[in-house]
Amino acid sequence: MHLFLKRVQIPLRIGKMANSKFEYVRNFESEDRLLPNCWIIVRIDGKNFHKYSSKHNFTKPNDARALNLMNRSAFCVMKEYKDIVLSYGESDEYSFVLRKETELHNRRGTKLLTHITSLFSSSYVFHWRDYFHDQSMLYPPYFDGRIVLYPSDNNLRDYLSWRQVDTHINNLYNTTFWNLVQKGNLTNREAQERLSGTFSSDKNEILFSEFGINYNNEPIMFRKGTILLRKKIKNPHRDKLHQVVLPIFEDMMHDEFWIQHPEILSNIP
Amino acid sequence: MHLFLKRVQIPLRIGKMANSKFEYVRNFESEDRLLPNCWIIVRIDGKNFHKYSSKHNFTKPNDARALNLMNRSAFCVMKEYKDIVLSYGESDEYSFVLRKETELHNRRGTKLLTHITSLFSSSYVFHWRDYFHDQSMLYPPYFDGRIVLYPSDNNLRDYLSWRQVDTHINNLYNTTFWNLVQKGNLTNREAQERLSGTFSSDKNEILFSEFGINYNNEPIMFRKGTILLRKKIKNPHRDKLHQVVLPIFEDMMHDEFWIQHPEILSNIP
Amino acid sequence: MHLFLKRVQIPLRIGKMANSKFEYVRNFESEDRLLPNCWIIVRIDGKNFHKYSSKHNFTKPNDARALNLMNRSAFCVMKEYKDIVLSYGESDEYSFVLRKETELHNRRGTKLLTHITSLFSSSYVFHWRDYFHDQSMLYPPYFDGRIVLYPSDNNLRDYLSWRQVDTHINNLYNTTFWNLVQKGNLTNREAQERLSGTFSSDKNEILFSEFGINYNNEPIMFRKGTILLRKKIKNPHRDKLHQVVLPIFEDMMHDEFWIQHPEILSNIP
Amino acid sequence: MHLFLKRVQIPLRIGKMANSKFEYVRNFESEDRLLPNCWIIVRIDGKNFHKYSSKHNFTKPNDARALNLMNRSAFCVMKEYKDIVLSYGESDEYSFVLRKETELHNRRGTKLLTHITSLFSSSYVFHWRDYFHDQSMLYPPYFDGRIVLYPSDNNLRDYLSWRQVDTHINNLYNTTFWNLVQKGNLTNREAQERLSGTFSSDKNEILFSEFGINYNNEPIMFRKGTILLRKKIKNPHRDKLHQVVLPIFEDMMHDEFWIQHPEILSNIP
Repeated sequence: MHLFLKRVQIPLRIGKMANSKFEYVRNFESEDRLLPNCWIIVRIDGKNFHKYSSKHNFTKPNDARALNLMNRSAFCVMKEYKDIVLSYGESDEYSFVLRKETELHNRRGTKLLTHITSLFSSSYVFHWRDYFHDQSMLYPPYFDGRIVLYPSDNNLRDYLSWRQVDTHINNLYNTTFWNLVQKGNLTNREAQERLSGTFSSDKNEILFSEFGINYNNEPIMFRKGTILLRKKIKNPHRDKLHQVVLPIFEDMMHDEFWIQHPEILSNIP
Repeated sequence: MHLFLKRVQIPLRIGKMANSKFEYVRNFESEDRLLPNCWIIVRIDGKNFHKYSSKHNFTKPNDARALNLMNRSAFCVMKEYKDIVLSYGESDEYSFVLRKETELHNRRGTKLLTHITSLFSSSYVFHWRDYFHDQSMLYPPYFDGRIVLYPSDNNLRDYLSWRQVDTHINNLYNTTFWNLVQKGNLTNREAQERLSGTFSSDKNEILFSEFGINYNNEPIMFRKGTILLRKKIKNPHRDKLHQVVLPIFEDMMHDEFWIQHPEILSNIP
Repeated sequence: MHLFLKRVQIPLRIGKMANSKFEYVRNFESEDRLLPNCWIIVRIDGKNFHKYSSKHNFTKPNDARALNLMNRSAFCVMKEYKDIVLSYGESDEYSFVLRKETELHNRRGTKLLTHITSLFSSSYVFHWRDYFHDQSMLYPPYFDGRIVLYPSDNNLRDYLSWRQVDTHINNLYNTTFWNLVQKGNLTNREAQERLSGTFSSDKNEILFSEFGINYNNEPIMFRKGTILLRKKIKNPHRDKLHQVVLPIFEDMMHDEFWIQHPEILSNIP
Repeated sequence: MHLFLKRVQIPLRIGKMANSKFEYVRNFESEDRLLPNCWIIVRIDGKNFHKYSSKHNFTKPNDARALNLMNRSAFCVMKEYKDIVLSYGESDEYSFVLRKETELHNRRGTKLLTHITSLFSSSYVFHWRDYFHDQSMLYPPYFDGRIVLYPSDNNLRDYLSWRQVDTHINNLYNTTFWNLVQKGNLTNREAQERLSGTFSSDKNEILFSEFGINYNNEPIMFRKGTILLRKKIKNPHRDKLHQVVLPIFEDMMHDEFWIQHPEILSNIP
């Protein structure tokens, strides 16, 4: 896009400066229209966030400020892209689900992917101060983006279950690991060895018996990640319902979730 | 990437939480390795920057602060991606040229495209204050990204000539247009009609005879855009040469440029 | 594939003949795994069959020999590719439907597409004599092939309805056209003008009132095209059912068809 | 393509038969325009030709009839596709090189790939009798097809060298192997073990000392494969040169070949 004026129609002959001689290079660009009637997922994922979180002293194993900043950035993306029906975030990653029928940007994958990744990235820096206050950002972070298609509602549900189970597995592991290190005085290596080969039940047991922690009482955002949904709510000062994006913390792997939020799969714009 | 720990190897049976049931969804991702032995261009382009520049009172027809912020963001990208041999920016767009032989991210197009677009976007917000000082950013901007392959050196040169001629055409038009409006007291519409069908020589004439402006004396960054190149320079305190990224303002459509900077096409990492 | 021996493992050093120097060119090949959980259609279509049918004196508007040869070739394809659950042919085109879950050739589109197109083409020549007897083939025909994915069962049904409605529209037009020309003594051009702007009902009326033809009594293969399905039938000499490929002539755009043949959508190998 | 009439323009309302309801399925097809300014290779390869050659008693290790039939089929393809500048065949595979600048079928890869694969396949069956005479074809063969792009002339030359070195390696191995089996009375397994780990020089030595065969005197078509080139020759009865496709048997890995046949890389239609 040009800053001040629409790209002008240039008369064909403008001396030796005519661009027509070089314009053939546009033909090297390729189309990438995504298959219709598929759910479109854009997933972004922090690049080198191990280092980034360490340099910025993120609290371990979960930093509520960092998670809320991720949520805020995702919120900015949803405000701009009305065809995103659900977003799901955990740790330094976020998945955006565009409705099956979307014709946004004529379903060109590259456009959808880069716009969302770009807006998420700039929002993260823009809103940093709201969450980290006096702690300065030392350098700009960046994110990996990818796009995946899912043909059926079940595939979509399984995708979201996959990410949410991943949240559970990683968070239970990390919570136990960091308790062993921070309160149990184990080295990182000792903690890793201690947890090697253990099951969920073993980790729950360690947390409870050694640190008095009932894992199920840990903050729900840490345990389940954040789901952003569009909901219609009543405005006390007005009659009409209006739509907002709300964070919720529920289990997507059970049917109840999908029954409670039928608008997700209903595919109505 | 996970924030605190490398993704853990999970024992197969962890009760009903095993992720193996859902993990099949990973097979829906597709490879996108780019054809080897081609120049890879990533071009980013401001999304809705007409509005963005207007809301942020960018000077017309060129805002040096905004252009320098673009250059700074491109500089951040080049610092991270050593395989970018040249970048070229004009207005709200920037092109990054990765050397033909790069095996970065195994030439996966989506990775290259999203990383560069993301880092450019976050850098833009991060460095805003250095250029706009007290003037706050009102909302985060975002960028469109695309990737194009060019098989031959000539194709690459023609691509860069295409962008630079575009800079010339647009800047000459915009400079004349805004002089007609700002100093000539024409309305936007009148200025547009006045310029309709004119050639370069006509616009140069208008600038000179009506506003006393010799277009060739306009700032070179406005007329030619900014080329960022890696150059080895002498460090006064040390013996060894070291590499820096330097902005230069030259004509890429002539052979001299390529003779003067043989390292660009030489394809040596 | 090599004719007589499996491709041999070659010791690394075989003098100057070592192929390792050139083998890098294999990296220029690209993967093309098709999105999982989608119906895969391969459609082949005669190339320049207007001329081919004319040179070989195909009966107009339908040549039963040519259609049966198409069916026979499709039959050969289905015998080789067990994951084709339905084929549909009309005129000089044939569509092959591979079941959603097929992992044949690891879902590589190029393999599926070229194998089917190639086998259809060679079968057409191989079986020509069975249908055209003493009439020689003058030159080898060839076919265009394409591959399309359909995410939902409804998309698949709509695709097949689209092809079958096309058969109807074209056959009704062609039948009327050739009656006007052959029995009505109109020139091609006059027939074309006579039919311009007419509806189905108009063409039915022309056929009936001018040529005494009830279109619904025309051969069903001409009117509906040929559907090839796998069916289990009883072998009189054996106890077990065995599977055969059968031609049927039914309406795919109605629900009955899909209720009567539940195995098509059931996706069981 | 429709057999007798161009696809007719159908009035919008034709009762319930209107195809417009289903036609949306066409949007699921995707474009596949190949990157411009690259050499396009289509390579076809016999599918299950180990079995095919055995069922049809092909002479081992080389069957001149089978090779000549391959050449004839490639010749048919070149006659139809004038933008093929060189073809190279060995064993049951053939590579077709389309000139860099070709705009045939608007560079749509699927079209180029399927047309060539299809025409090769049908030609193979069509011309069988000319080479195998009374020996009947038992069943139709089919071919795998793939398409690969090469950006530079060197890449193209390396590709062809790769295939020709492969011919050499395989033919030397097969010639030695079958001499050991047929004249040396070794079993297949014994011959394989005998050759395991041997170099070219060892195989040459075995052939010479045990069977009196100077490998370099073996038929050149077996040793080097067949190159088909377009050449302009003098017609004795006419003044003008006219173009023919000629088989030649030369080394493509040396510069001489490319100097002797400058028209290949010159990229003139």
